[in-house]
Amino acid sequence: MNQTITARRSGLGCALASVLCASAASAAEIVHDAEYYIIEAQNGKEWAVEDGQLDKKLAELRKKFDAPPNIIHYMWDDQPVMAFGDPMFQQIRGYKTPVLNKLAEEGMLFSRMCTEPGCTPSRSASLTGQLAIRTGTWEIGFPIEYTGFAAENVTMAEVLSQAGYATGFFGKLHLGDTEESYMHNQGFDEAFWAIYNQVTSLYNNIGEGANAIIGLKEGLLAENPYKRDDTFIQDEALVFYLEGKKGEQAKEWRNGSKELKDYKDFDIEARKRALSFIRTSAEAKKPFYVAWWPLWISFIAEPNKTTLQRGMVGEEYGRVIEPDIAELRKTLEELGIAENTLIVAMADNGPMTHNPPAGAGLGEGPFRGGKGDFTEGGVRVCAAALWPGMIEPGQIAADMIHQTDLFTTFARLAGATEHIPTDRIIDGIDQTALLLNGDTHGRRDYNFIYAGPNLAATVKDHYKMHWVSKDPSQAAAGITAVFDLYNDHREVNPIVVGGFHMKEPFKRMRARHALWKEKYPDRHHKRAPSYTGISNARPETIAVSQPPEAMKNLPYDVLDFIKKLDDLPYDGGDSSSVGH
Amino acid sequence: MNQTITARRSGLGCALASVLCASAASAAEIVHDAEYYIIEAQNGKEWAVEDGQLDKKLAELRKKFDAPPNIIHYMWDDQPVMAFGDPMFQQIRGYKTPVLNKLAEEGMLFSRMCTEPGCTPSRSASLTGQLAIRTGTWEIGFPIEYTGFAAENVTMAEVLSQAGYATGFFGKLHLGDTEESYMHNQGFDEAFWAIYNQVTSLYNNIGEGANAIIGLKEGLLAENPYKRDDTFIQDEALVFYLEGKKGEQAKEWRNGSKELKDYKDFDIEARKRALSFIRTSAEAKKPFYVAWWPLWISFIAEPNKTTLQRGMVGEEYGRVIEPDIAELRKTLEELGIAENTLIVAMADNGPMTHNPPAGAGLGEGPFRGGKGDFTEGGVRVCAAALWPGMIEPGQIAADMIHQTDLFTTFARLAGATEHIPTDRIIDGIDQTALLLNGDTHGRRDYNFIYAGPNLAATVKDHYKMHWVSKDPSQAAAGITAVFDLYNDHREVNPIVVGGFHMKEPFKRMRARHALWKEKYPDRHHKRAPSYTGISNARPETIAVSQPPEAMKNLPYDVLDFIKKLDDLPYDGGDSSSVGH
Repeated sequence: MNQTITARRSGLGCALASVLCASAASAAEIVHDAEYYIIEAQNGKEWAVEDGQLDKKLAELRKKFDAPPNIIHYMWDDQPVMAFGDPMFQQIRGYKTPVLNKLAEEGMLFSRMCTEPGCTPSRSASLTGQLAIRTGTWEIGFPIEYTGFAAENVTMAEVLSQAGYATGFFGKLHLGDTEESYMHNQGFDEAFWAIYNQVTSLYNNIGEGANAIIGLKEGLLAENPYKRDDTFIQDEALVFYLEGKKGEQAKEWRNGSKELKDYKDFDIEARKRALSFIRTSAEAKKPFYVAWWPLWISFIAEPNKTTLQRGMVGEEYGRVIEPDIAELRKTLEELGIAENTLIVAMADNGPMTHNPPAGAGLGEGPFRGGKGDFTEGGVRVCAAALWPGMIEPGQIAADMIHQTDLFTTFARLAGATEHIPTDRIIDGIDQTALLLNGDTHGRRDYNFIYAGPNLAATVKDHYKMHWVSKDPSQAAAGITAVFDLYNDHREVNPIVVGGFHMKEPFKRMRARHALWKEKYPDRHHKRAPSYTGISNARPETIAVSQPPEAMKNLPYDVLDFIKKLDDLPYDGGDSSSVGH
Repeated sequence: MNQTITARRSGLGCALASVLCASAASAAEIVHDAEYYIIEAQNGKEWAVEDGQLDKKLAELRKKFDAPPNIIHYMWDDQPVMAFGDPMFQQIRGYKTPVLNKLAEEGMLFSRMCTEPGCTPSRSASLTGQLAIRTGTWEIGFPIEYTGFAAENVTMAEVLSQAGYATGFFGKLHLGDTEESYMHNQGFDEAFWAIYNQVTSLYNNIGEGANAIIGLKEGLLAENPYKRDDTFIQDEALVFYLEGKKGEQAKEWRNGSKELKDYKDFDIEARKRALSFIRTSAEAKKPFYVAWWPLWISFIAEPNKTTLQRGMVGEEYGRVIEPDIAELRKTLEELGIAENTLIVAMADNGPMTHNPPAGAGLGEGPFRGGKGDFTEGGVRVCAAALWPGMIEPGQIAADMIHQTDLFTTFARLAGATEHIPTDRIIDGIDQTALLLNGDTHGRRDYNFIYAGPNLAATVKDHYKMHWVSKDPSQAAAGITAVFDLYNDHREVNPIVVGGFHMKEPFKRMRARHALWKEKYPDRHHKRAPSYTGISNARPETIAVSQPPEAMKNLPYDVLDFIKKLDDLPYDGGDSSSVGH
């Protein structure tokens, strides 16, 4: 423990304000959120001893394989805790996932893997180890965005690249449509991705894909004699799928096709590329990090169903995720690297329980709410980790773990901690001890849950404070709204009297969190024209980033609106809506 | 297949009305609900073949043990599907049940065990094989009731007694406080029971039991100078615990004590008596049927907790249920009869999610609603069956099974089917095939769910029609409110368009069910003075059933109100309330 940390710790011990007075982290030290230092002050000595043992264990493995471990982060959309690894819940919902359940049985199943409540923030948090609020990526993106994940962000791929890892991205991204946000510009050696979410990637209102339609498709209407503006919805310009290699321009895949066939082919192609990337890296004796985030989800009516799930949550698993994982495991076995590869398989956020596409079958798991909600239903997901020989099989870990922790943990496992940036708060906590030493060895006891740009709830241990509420008897009226997550896992009945002594401690947590932000302020996402840097860009696409001649005679620059987009008011109220 | 059945079947084939015209069941035939004959007509041939094989299997076991199987029905209060047997859900709620989980692993775990939505109806249904509506026991009883389970009911104990079984009842009953309802007057050789629910069994507002207080206790108030009536609440008269032997008078246990100690001792005493009854029966080479329904539930603040569950759902398991089951299994092993004994362990209805006692921790499982609700959260419970050598271990059965089915199934296993009364509808279906041949071999695809006296929902396969609803877009407005239980297990989004073609089929089910009741009408519970037939009755207790001198000069008979109680209006509307 160096002097800097000691100083910072004793500072936090005195008073809130001293967090700010404390000396900044040294260049070699990760800056954690303020709350971390509170628990580190109490547990740090024990952790240091444990870390020594863990280092030894990792060194032994490294010696055996002559390489640091490979890391595969496999993540899909919108599934609650128990969506896999819990046969009872699957029987209730009418589908099975034998491959994923086997992975969970042979590894560690998490009952408390926390994520951001929506796709864009969740994917950003996974790549940066930071809550999405810190990188301005809390809004779920829809085309055409004129924004995206900023170059200033330091991704897992950038960190691990510096430690000699081969890095590949395959699947759904959902982090904007600007050139900076492209994955091969964000540290990945090789990338193949879908830009938007599933529905916009299948912007198709006819034939097989009819179930997926959301939004306006004028082809369905009679010719509109009142129409004056052809640019309001530029759906012909949409780019759905891109590929790229580090240092090169991006290339569009399938030329803007909105066909169901291409949508379905995408995941098969992603699988092919991911497995080939793994094989090539292994044969080149290069450790690798793969973010493999499939696109397909159950919005599509399938003629040949394999499940009792009308909404076909099961189909998503059956047709994409299960074969992905099965082939991945087979490939790792064949390459002889299964025991030197950590797989984390998880969903990105809770199920889309509010206004889902017709028949999507995205029901709640055990928690209340889903995607977009700050109740646990929005931010706890199904997740498991497999690492034969390193993670003891058959565990259910009830320790809190956050998706940002994967960033810090992966970096440690790769010996790349020194490459984590130290000029910003990294929310991720190193959870190597949880993985290798098992349940109760986790190092997190808190979570700050944002709904859009607003802090909506704070968790400490198994207590949760709602800062916003539509219930007049709760937070809104200034009364404490503390929930006991063991006793009332659905957050229905605040323990008002029992929670009286917790209001001020929760306020202290929030104050420390806010104060630390004054030193390390939240950043914005990055506004820019969409779709630049694509070598085979179509004319419709180019027209979006470089408006056509006819638009050049306007009394203002047609792209000037981009800088005003961030000034628009945001109704955070809606984000606090919680369903049945 | 005999002529009677053939005739009835072809009758049902024509039109609704023909159900009534069909010849009555012969003396030897169980009368099922109308819906059963629809599925029997389609599956009966297959079932007959299967039944032949099952009979053979049962005969082999009987030969081996020279006795029919022993049957233990262990049932406790208010726990949802997944409350045991699902380690993930338990991690989420902060408790563990290793003993019950082992039972589930070594036997069959049910994902779809259906019950009545409250204690009184559920316990009645278990004992009679009939929905509570048919025996007038749909209302949850509170003291002093002046009513109870009627002598005309034929209980499991009466049926199995006729086949030579020793029968014992130990635990919480909650079926009224009249002499007819006493368990030793209802076919049990030996009985030891708590009359009411937990809160009234602990009618105590001081000291340790303070958490249990509900209702009025005048001792807490200043002396009331406005008081004119000492008989309004007669809490000194309350009898909580009784014991009795067939043919004898009942005896009060612990003389009306409201102490926490006696409340807790009750379950320990019930365990002692149950195990002793089992041992005595086994040593006498008598097959036995034991209904063992513990009383203790988590309303009590415990000084030495063993779980993270503040509401102590876990404590209930840890302090009563787990040791009960562990000692039961040990006893059966010692007696060498484990392989000739079927244990069914289950809850009686969904969790008390609405207005629970403070901190009871009775959160929902995967389904919406709880005790009292007609949504699945009210009527699907945690349940497992163990029968080493007969039930294949490690199964999760997703077939629908109803608690009334246990009645019919137990009777068949005991060779006592001929003693089931044939003058009434028996809702229970023989599910021996499900137990012995496993998942998908169930014989039920329907359920009629009553909320109080009103039919609230009808289930067919995985579809469910709500007949009542507070949502104006649903049933109340005459539109179909059909839910797909796989796709929308929480019954949140009715499949309106997809359900259009199901409205009339559901109406036909309801019509057949109603029509059959014209032939076999619902009965009433039985009004009578409370607490008669107790050999050691206290004066306060006697005063309730035989009013004191002072009350004999009233211008009416003070006990005449009893016959008017059933004429009071019942607000069924409240029963259709469904929570978060």
